[in-house]
Formats: sequence, C-alpha cells, structure tokens
Amino acid sequence: MTDYFSLRDLELAASATLPKDVWDFVAGGSGSELTLEANRTALDRIRLVPRVLRDVSGCSTAAALLGRDAGMPLAVAPVAYHRLLHPEGELAVARAARRVGVPFTVGMLSSFPLERIVAEGARTWFQLYWLRDETKLFELVARAEEAGCEALMLTVDVPWMARRLRDIRNQFSLPEDVTAANLSAGASSQAHEWRAGTSAVAAHTSAAMTAALTWESVEKLRARTTLPLILKGVLDPRDARRAADSGVDVLVVSNHGGRQLDGAVPSIEMLSAVREAVAGDCEVLFDSGVRSGTDVLRALALGATGVLVGRAVMWGLAVGGEQGVDTVFRLLADEFRDALGLAGCASVCDAARLRTVS
Amino acid sequence: MTDYFSLRDLELAASATLPKDVWDFVAGGSGSELTLEANRTALDRIRLVPRVLRDVSGCSTAAALLGRDAGMPLAVAPVAYHRLLHPEGELAVARAARRVGVPFTVGMLSSFPLERIVAEGARTWFQLYWLRDETKLFELVARAEEAGCEALMLTVDVPWMARRLRDIRNQFSLPEDVTAANLSAGASSQAHEWRAGTSAVAAHTSAAMTAALTWESVEKLRARTTLPLILKGVLDPRDARRAADSGVDVLVVSNHGGRQLDGAVPSIEMLSAVREAVAGDCEVLFDSGVRSGTDVLRALALGATGVLVGRAVMWGLAVGGEQGVDTVFRLLADEFRDALGLAGCASVCDAARLRTVS
Amino acid sequence: MTDYFSLRDLELAASATLPKDVWDFVAGGSGSELTLEANRTALDRIRLVPRVLRDVSGCSTAAALLGRDAGMPLAVAPVAYHRLLHPEGELAVARAARRVGVPFTVGMLSSFPLERIVAEGARTWFQLYWLRDETKLFELVARAEEAGCEALMLTVDVPWMARRLRDIRNQFSLPEDVTAANLSAGASSQAHEWRAGTSAVAAHTSAAMTAALTWESVEKLRARTTLPLILKGVLDPRDARRAADSGVDVLVVSNHGGRQLDGAVPSIEMLSAVREAVAGDCEVLFDSGVRSGTDVLRALALGATGVLVGRAVMWGLAVGGEQGVDTVFRLLADEFRDALGLAGCASVCDAARLRTVS
Amino acid sequence: MTDYFSLRDLELAASATLPKDVWDFVAGGSGSELTLEANRTALDRIRLVPRVLRDVSGCSTAAALLGRDAGMPLAVAPVAYHRLLHPEGELAVARAARRVGVPFTVGMLSSFPLERIVAEGARTWFQLYWLRDETKLFELVARAEEAGCEALMLTVDVPWMARRLRDIRNQFSLPEDVTAANLSAGASSQAHEWRAGTSAVAAHTSAAMTAALTWESVEKLRARTTLPLILKGVLDPRDARRAADSGVDVLVVSNHGGRQLDGAVPSIEMLSAVREAVAGDCEVLFDSGVRSGTDVLRALALGATGVLVGRAVMWGLAVGGEQGVDTVFRLLADEFRDALGLAGCASVCDAARLRTVS
Repeated sequence: MTDYFSLRDLELAASATLPKDVWDFVAGGSGSELTLEANRTALDRIRLVPRVLRDVSGCSTAAALLGRDAGMPLAVAPVAYHRLLHPEGELAVARAARRVGVPFTVGMLSSFPLERIVAEGARTWFQLYWLRDETKLFELVARAEEAGCEALMLTVDVPWMARRLRDIRNQFSLPEDVTAANLSAGASSQAHEWRAGTSAVAAHTSAAMTAALTWESVEKLRARTTLPLILKGVLDPRDARRAADSGVDVLVVSNHGGRQLDGAVPSIEMLSAVREAVAGDCEVLFDSGVRSGTDVLRALALGATGVLVGRAVMWGLAVGGEQGVDTVFRLLADEFRDALGLAGCASVCDAARLRTVS
Repeated sequence: MTDYFSLRDLELAASATLPKDVWDFVAGGSGSELTLEANRTALDRIRLVPRVLRDVSGCSTAAALLGRDAGMPLAVAPVAYHRLLHPEGELAVARAARRVGVPFTVGMLSSFPLERIVAEGARTWFQLYWLRDETKLFELVARAEEAGCEALMLTVDVPWMARRLRDIRNQFSLPEDVTAANLSAGASSQAHEWRAGTSAVAAHTSAAMTAALTWESVEKLRARTTLPLILKGVLDPRDARRAADSGVDVLVVSNHGGRQLDGAVPSIEMLSAVREAVAGDCEVLFDSGVRSGTDVLRALALGATGVLVGRAVMWGLAVGGEQGVDTVFRLLADEFRDALGLAGCASVCDAARLRTVS
Repeated sequence: MTDYFSLRDLELAASATLPKDVWDFVAGGSGSELTLEANRTALDRIRLVPRVLRDVSGCSTAAALLGRDAGMPLAVAPVAYHRLLHPEGELAVARAARRVGVPFTVGMLSSFPLERIVAEGARTWFQLYWLRDETKLFELVARAEEAGCEALMLTVDVPWMARRLRDIRNQFSLPEDVTAANLSAGASSQAHEWRAGTSAVAAHTSAAMTAALTWESVEKLRARTTLPLILKGVLDPRDARRAADSGVDVLVVSNHGGRQLDGAVPSIEMLSAVREAVAGDCEVLFDSGVRSGTDVLRALALGATGVLVGRAVMWGLAVGGEQGVDTVFRLLADEFRDALGLAGCASVCDAARLRTVS
Repeated sequence: MTDYFSLRDLELAASATLPKDVWDFVAGGSGSELTLEANRTALDRIRLVPRVLRDVSGCSTAAALLGRDAGMPLAVAPVAYHRLLHPEGELAVARAARRVGVPFTVGMLSSFPLERIVAEGARTWFQLYWLRDETKLFELVARAEEAGCEALMLTVDVPWMARRLRDIRNQFSLPEDVTAANLSAGASSQAHEWRAGTSAVAAHTSAAMTAALTWESVEKLRARTTLPLILKGVLDPRDARRAADSGVDVLVVSNHGGRQLDGAVPSIEMLSAVREAVAGDCEVLFDSGVRSGTDVLRALALGATGVLVGRAVMWGLAVGGEQGVDTVFRLLADEFRDALGLAGCASVCDAARLRTVS
C-alpha cells in the first residue's frame, strides 16, 4: 500500500482490478454523465486564497461532526453492496474508519447486516431509503437505534434510480453471494436477476423504494426517532430552509455524485446558498466529487462542516481491502492537513474564514 | 430496436447507415457550423437545481400543446423529404407520433401528400414556407384545413436556404423517387438537378420561396385562416412582441438547428427573453438541439411549453423506420419522465418553477 | 476556382502551395501567437440575434466607405510585397478589387510602384509608415495624391516590427526579384540580406521607419494633405478620442492581425468602446481576423462601417493570382449577403441595429 | 546560445538535458499541479490595450527596484541548490545578473556560500526560511548584512514543503556534491538520504524550518536588521495590509510557482487587490509563471513594480551555464522592450497606465 501517492493512483488501480461491470457500477453516472464531470470541473474552479504567518506547527485536522469529535471533517458516504468490491466489504471499511476516527454511513443496502458492521466500533450512521413497506422501514430504524447508530441519514434524491447507461448496457446484476443483508432473505432477489436492457439493481431499487417520499414522511420519521436526522441530496435553498424548519439536524448538499438527475447543478455551486438559507439551523455537509484534501478545504471554505467521500473509499477497498481503505484515509488526512496548513489554518475552524475566487 | 439506450446511439447508427450525402443533409449546419455546435454547448451549460421530497410516484409527462393534450411536451419539427431516410417516410413518423400522442408537423416539402399523412391519425400541424406563388400557397392552406390539420406553422427564418457547405460540397440533389409531394408535379424538379458547386435542394428552395416575407404576410395569413398560427424561427424579443401583437398564437424559438445564420445565438439563450417579451400572450415552444429528456426539462425550466425535435426523429426513421421512430419517442419519454421525477416534479407544470444555473 | 467554398478552403490551398517561409510570413503572428489566436476566438464568441419578417428580397451588400460607394463594406488591408505570393502581385489584387468595387489599400512596401497599381482602376488608398527620412515620406504623400489615391492610411502600431518568431526561425529575407518598389532603388536592400537569427524584413523596417511617431506627426500630416486621413491600429478609446480631435477621418480598430504586441486585446473586444469614444466624429473600420461574411456582419453589428481583409486576400492571390482574389471576393460577397439577409437586414445600414450576445 | 528565440525553446532544451528527477524537481508543482497550470492560464487571459503615437524611440527597460536602478524590472527568484543544474550554480547566475543589472536573490539553501556569490558583484538579496534554530537564523542575517546583501526576503508560504508528487514518486534526494552551503556542514545531510515514498529535500526542509512563523517573527526580524525587508508569498489583501503595517518594505505576490497549496489562486488574480490594500505603503513585486516579456508587462499593468523569475533562469543555467542565463536575460530584455514599445510605453512607468481586459 506504499505506492499510492494520490487518490487518482488508487482510482487507476481499482479500474484495472475490478470486473468492468462492477467498475462501471461504482464509477458511472447517469445519462450522458454531464453532472458527474461537472462536479469535478466545478470543484477545480474554486481557487483558495491562502493566509500566511499563522502558527500552523500544531495544525490539526480534528473536527466536530454532529457535535462529536472526528479525526477529520469527513465521513464515509453511504454506498450499497461493498462486497461487490471485496469479500470483507463494509466490515473492512468500518475498521479503517474507526482507526482514523471518521463516521461510517452504513447503507440500507449494505452487504453485511448493520449490527455486525456497528460492532466493528466505528462511529456509525445508518442510511435509509424510504421503503414502500413502512413497517419494514421502521423495523430498520429500530434496529439502527438498538445497534447504536448515532444518526439516521435519509436519502431524498432517489424516488427511483436514474438511467445509468453503463449499468443498463452491462445488464448489471448482483452476483449470488452479494445480498442486501439488512432486508429479509430474498428481498433483494430481483437485484440478481439478469435481464436484457435493464440494470437489475435499478429494478430492485424501484420495486422496494417509494417515489412518494414527502416532507410529511420526514416529519413522521422525525417523530419516530430521537436520533439526529440527516437529509442527503438537498440542492435548492428553498428545500434547505424547509428542512431546517422540519427539525432536520444536518443537510448533505449532494447531487448523488452525478448518479441521479443528469444535468443537475454541481453540488459545490449550491453549497453557499444552502448554508445561507439554513442560517445556522442545520449543520451542512458536502458530497459529490471529493477527491483530495484540497477538495475538503474548498468545501469548508464555502461553508460546509465536513464532507462525505464515497467512490474514493471504494477504490481503496477494491485495491486492498481494509489496508486499501487505510491508504485512502491516510492520503486524505495527509493531504487535508497539508492543505490546511499551507492555507494558514491551524485548525478546521480557520478554514471557514478563507476567501475563494472562482 | 432494443440496443439503443440513448439518442446518441441512434445518431451513430444512422450515420453508419445513411449514404454520406443524405447524412450530411440531415446532420449538417450552415457555414462553419458554429451555431450547430453552440446549440449543444449552450444546452449543456444549463444546470438544473432539482427539488426533493415531492410525491413523484404518479409523475406524468402529459402536457398541453396548443390547448390540447399531448403525451409529452414535444412535437415533431418540420423536416423536408422524409423518404430520403426511409421508404415509408412521413407515414412512419406519423404513425409513431400517433401512438405516443405527440403532434407531427408535416413539412410543406413532405415526400408524401399531406392528406395521406394526416390520415395516419396523429395530431398534425402543417408547415408553410411562403411560396412566391401566393395562389398555390393559399391552396395549400385550404388543403391543410380541409385535411384536418390543427395548426399552421409558418417558418420565418428562411428567406432562402443558407450556405450549407456539406450539401454544396456533396452537390446534393434529391433522388428521382423523392419529390415534394404537396406541390404540383414537377414543381420540385429543380431539386433533382445535379449541378457542380451548388445544392439542388437549396436552389429549388430559393426558386420556389419568397425572400420578401414580412409582418404583412403574417397578418394576411392570420386573416385567411381560423387555425392557430405558429411562427417558427423567432429569436429577438422585439420580433416576439410584434408577433404577439399580430395575433400569432405560438412562437417557436429556433435558429433552425444551426442551419440558417451561422453565428446566430444558440436558441436556448433567447428563450427566457422571448418568454418575457410575450408576457403570456403567446405559447412559446423551443427548438434547436434537443437530444434528451434533460434537454426537454431545461427548455421547460426556462419557460417553454414544449419542444420540437427534428434530427433525432430522423435518426430513428433512418435506422428502423416506424419502429425506429417508436424507439426515439420511447427514449425521450423515458428520459423525460426520469428527469422530471428526479427534479422533484410530479407534472410538467412543476418544471416551470425549477431554478437553473448557467 | 470553383472548388473553394469557404475562405478556409483557400487557406489550406495556400499553405500547401507556398514555400514554408513565405507562408509563415503571411500566416504568422508575434511571440506565442496568443493574440493571433484570440482574434478568432473572440470573433466566434460574438453571437448575432437575427431579425425576421423583413423583406430581404432586394438584400444588398452595397456600402459607403469614406463617403463613396463600395460593393460591400470591405477594403483590402495594406499588405507588403504581394509579389512574394504571385508574380502579378498588387496588380492582380487591384484588378479584382476594381471588379467588385472595394477599395484597395496599397502598402508603402508594395512590390509594384503605387502609380502602376492605381492605374488598374480600383479605388485606392495609400498606406504610410512614417519614414525616418521625412522628405521621402512627403514625396510619397505627394505621389499618392498625384496618382489619384483617395485616402492616406497611416499605420500607427508599428514603431518597429514585433518579434515574429516564425520569420526569425526561418531567417526570412526577400527574394531578389521582390523589392519595395515605391522606395528608391536599393532602399530595401537590407530586406534581402540573409542573416542568422533575424528576419531581414524586420531589420529593414526598423532601419527605415521611425519609432518616434507621435500625435504631432499626425497633425503635421493632417496639415500637409487634403486627402482623408485614416489611422490604422487604434485600440484604446482614449487614443480614439484624441484621433477624432486631431482631425482624423477614419480609425481602423486593429491589433495588426496579431502581428505586433503579443498579448494585445482582440480587436473586436475594443470596437464598441472605440465607436462610443469617437461619438460619430470618425468613421470606424474593423481589422484583424475577418474570415467570413458572418465576421463582417459581426463587426457591423458592433459599430463598424466596414472591415479590412488582409490575409484572406493573400490566400487567393497565392492560389490563383487575379482569379484567386476574385474567388475570395466572390465568397465574401456571397457569404456576407447570405448573413445579412438571414439576419433580416435588407441593407448594410440595418446591420447596426442587430443585437449581439457574447 | 543563438538558437533560442523564446524561453519555451530553453525549457524544451532543459527538459531534454536534465536527469528526469532534477527536471521534475524544477518543473513540478504540488498535488495535481492545478495551480501550476492555472498560473499560466491566468496570465494568458490578461489582455493588454496598447497605446499608440507615443515616441518610443528611446524606449528603455530601466527600472527602480527597492529604490535602486535595475536594467529591467526583474529579479532572480530564490531557488535552492543551483548546482543541481550546473557545476557553477549560483555563481554563474550571479555573473549573468550583474551583467544585465538585475538583482539576484540568493536562496538560503544555495549550493555556494552566500559570501562567494555576493563577491560576483550582482545586486544581491538574501532569502530566508525561518529556521527552527533562531540563533543560526540570525547568524545568517548577520552574514548577509556583512557580505553586502541589500535586502532580506523572507519566504512566508512554506510552513513546510507541500506534497510535490513528482519528487515523492522519484524519491528525490540531493547528489553528494550538492549541499546547503550556507548551513553548517552536515546540516542538510537529511536532504541526501534516499528513502522510499518521500522526497528527501522535503524531509530536510521540514526538519530545519519552523511551521510556527508568525507576524511576531516578522516584527522580530524587522527589529534586528536595517536592511529592507521583503515578504514573499502574500496573496490575501488582509495579509498585505498587515505586512505594510508591520514595516515590511516589499511584498512579493506569489503562490510559490504552484509548488505550495495546490488549488491556490493564480497569483496574477490577486495582484491588483494587494496593490490596493497596501495603498503605496509597500513596493509590490509579482512572482509565479513569468515566461515572457509580455508577462512582465502584464504584471506592471496590474500594479507590480517588477517581477521575479525562477524556473526560466534555471532552464538557461541547465542548458548553458552562465551563457545560458545570459540568453534568458537577453530574451527577457528583448521581449520586454519589444512589448513595452509596442504598447506605446517609452518607459517602465508608462506601463502602469495601460488598461487590461480579462
């Protein structure tokens, strides 16, 4: 794991290692992948104005996420079916997350049961899609609470899975040994059924999840749990304000990594406006396209408290299992500390005062 | 017809199938094709800000065009000589349009007689170039009314055909068996005459159509028919206002798909200004460069009631006749419903309230 | 001459025909050729908003330049040593210019004597560099007046020739049979002297011309001739205003086709500001990068009365002598009339009322 | 040395001559080299509006830097270890700088002792990193004063060396015969120690220099020397103002040539704001990406008094030692005089009144 000096190195290694259809499932976006590409372009266009002559000898990446300490202002984004990438799947990622002190978001569609993942000892958030079967949904909520998850992250930008052409062309389906372990046996069987002209995973998602998710659903969930509530997938400041007014604790400004609406605005371009709209009533996290420590700093300078990282963690998992994920976290920590100090910030708090030019 | 997952797939197939000169006639633009290219660039630059937590389980693409129901907010743009692409030409397109419930605009230069096309049962609009011979022009108007066309679309951006270099280099002329079936026998004979250094189709157009079309012509036509009147090719808001004041019902904001003035502004950049200028007095459609459901959504978010699609329909026709056009409509409907729902819109009306960033 | 359908076709033919060093002398710019390239990029970025429903059946390219009729709003820019490109040099260009009714600017460094060129019957303007030897300079002014030139065009952006790296690398010098025919025998001998590491033409220019040209020089020239006075090479509006106040009749907004200050602003970006600064007190022409009829229309829409074309005329001369220049003029006239009509302009005057987007 | 007509020619020659790891050490930037590239893009985007009709026959590049005459408004930037590039290292550069009358900044990490370099007779500035061992630091200050250095340049943007991936991949370390000659014997031994996965030079820098440099350090240095004090690496106008208030004489607006914070703003984009913030209380120099005389003019037009050039001087040194550096200076002087005169500036002072467009 010593030959990787940037996340890009790991990306290249992962793309060389994985079967094409799995690589495409992880790397791809929706439609013409315009938003996927725009996420990167928009981040690169954010230029930071560093400060000088501050004592950064004790420069620390320590952060607070949801009011608790984190090793850096970063959490693992929810990603389905980690076992597609490595037999140890979510367990490997959770162990690495624990070591570096960052929260791990267990996907509802995780390939190990959430209890087993939580047992690895990382700070754990649990991600929810709103199941058509609300009984099952609230059973999952109860399991998450009981297992010790410290927050629930409701994904709000997936009324259904978007047209991801790579998966459709590949007729992507899950291998037999990868299942949605949190759901009842057989619940995800549809995700294994190879059919011409479709992605089995998309078909399963549409069958299981509702497209009728509304603010009332959010309020119902809010009433049913005392855990902090995170909404993932908010871009319009009007929705952000409404979320704050509905008792949501945290917003994740995200376009689902370019995997849902093709043509959606790059997340980073909405971050400041969302931040202003919530006026401190919600914590704001950033997601979509983070690939370096500089990206983390960019998001912080524009008002985020932290970022989610999804694909990059998967590259590490694919390349080297738990050690590969360690490498991803080490690189991100090294790069972020480097960027922070070089920008004249002794701590994560200072980052919010940096100016940017775009 | 199951191996096409985007209109781009059909474009590639069509370009591989068609004789080069026919492909160029369909695909090409004028001059250096700067506007042709700018149409796409400008559309891709429109970024949508999706809404979340709306019930889109019943998301419908149903639209109203000219006050009547349509399966989606889309009509087939007028394109001359469909038989260049397939022996069943306009008939095949009309059948497919009927099935999906979108209006079909019969070109004045259609390669089947308009009556026969109308008989296929689609909602039909009839496109007019202003013939030098006004007697013939008004005969065509009468035929369109009698056949049951529901609107007349006057093309106003073709005083003559622009310099389309591909056609000129190819010395493009019509094959014997493709004629302007609405005109008297022999009327389009010039369009079949191969001559060095020119496009026979352009020569015929210039010979038959007037370059003296004015607002008085529009008012004359307005007075001669009770059918709704659509003007196609308006970009300057001053012209849009004048059209509204002249009793025009619908405007098509269009630069003729980059086929007339090379260096003209991308149509999408004028859409909002035209919309504001007419202040609700005309319905506004968008044309030029639509290649996906996201493009339809973009146009709607910027104020259009619907869009015209020309070239993409021709790709389907060339690749698979009626079935090919079915595929085009199916893809556009699937993509548009996908985009609509992912943007948090339960119906076409919601699209007008989306914010865009560019 | 019938296989050329755009000026680009002629450019390619010329580059294939000419010796590399001559091609480079014509095509090249200064330094890193940033301004050369920016001239084109900036023109292409000007998008025109066409008007519709105007009677353009009698659309005419006829223009007035310096108060006299011209076949189109275009003049031949001063270019040195036409015989580098074709044995008939300036004579061929003058004949073609006469036929199409556009003024021809004879360069001071023309390779035929100005009297012989004027005798070809075109409207003729005479270009001046300010010679170190003012006696010779005013002799040339007198000769131009006597020969019937209708205006003097003083080039003001050449205190010396810029570093044109192609010429320097090619150690460019004039062949024996090409001389500065207006100057005394042997005056340009330096331009024939091959020397390592320099361009002989640049060396000669620097030796013969002054770098001390000032507004006083302009006023002196103004006082010595009754001919209309054109200043070529003005970009800053402050200089434009000063020129108007000094009795200059015409300004040419030009960066010398990217051949003088590398890094200079594209001329088209200064056109509107210059136009405003002179407030109608000078006629304003545009130069630098015109390659099509659309470019002419762009310049007119931004306030120019006409444009100068240099390199494109040379391409025609190189490819086919007089006939080649005819082709250039025919293409420009066809394209310009096409663009004018398609933009809804019946005459050159209408072009000034077009809106542009950039 | 006569075949180089632009600095780009020398860059290509240097890259062909040097061992890959040395080339990468000189040419590389940090991280993804986004800032390295942006420096050039941003400079090229600055377009100059030249003036005309000014007497530039006596056009002079003479400048004042820190109140003393310079042959042109340019100084050699501090660069470590010149002997990596040529055995005569800093001595060769100093001799060439003397000949052309530009100040030479001796790096603290120079590969000859500062006294020996000063003895070559160029105007000399001495660069400081703030050593962890302040006794040694002030010994160096005293040596610089005694040797006759005319100013001290404190680098303020290197709390540590950024992640320069080329060096890390190359496991870059110094050859035995190149040492930090100003430091005690063995002080830089760490910079020679090859270790997997790191750059030995970065490791040494971090070990020797402090990351705790603050405004108090600056004030301490200000109090300990009567030499003019230059701060290098200021980008934020708030830091610039603070520097002026701390008695700093000169600011260098710099992002360390894209070698420190990857994602930092291009220096040229902050120049005007820094200039305004100091309101004449400091002299302002520009650094980062200067590659031509036009670049020098751009910086002057935006408010700099002069520029620093680092990499380009190294190219000359690598290619031809002292003569190579002569070539670099000759090219820069020729190009700058050319640009100055072609922009209508008779002197360096006039450049500040040029307008720019970007």
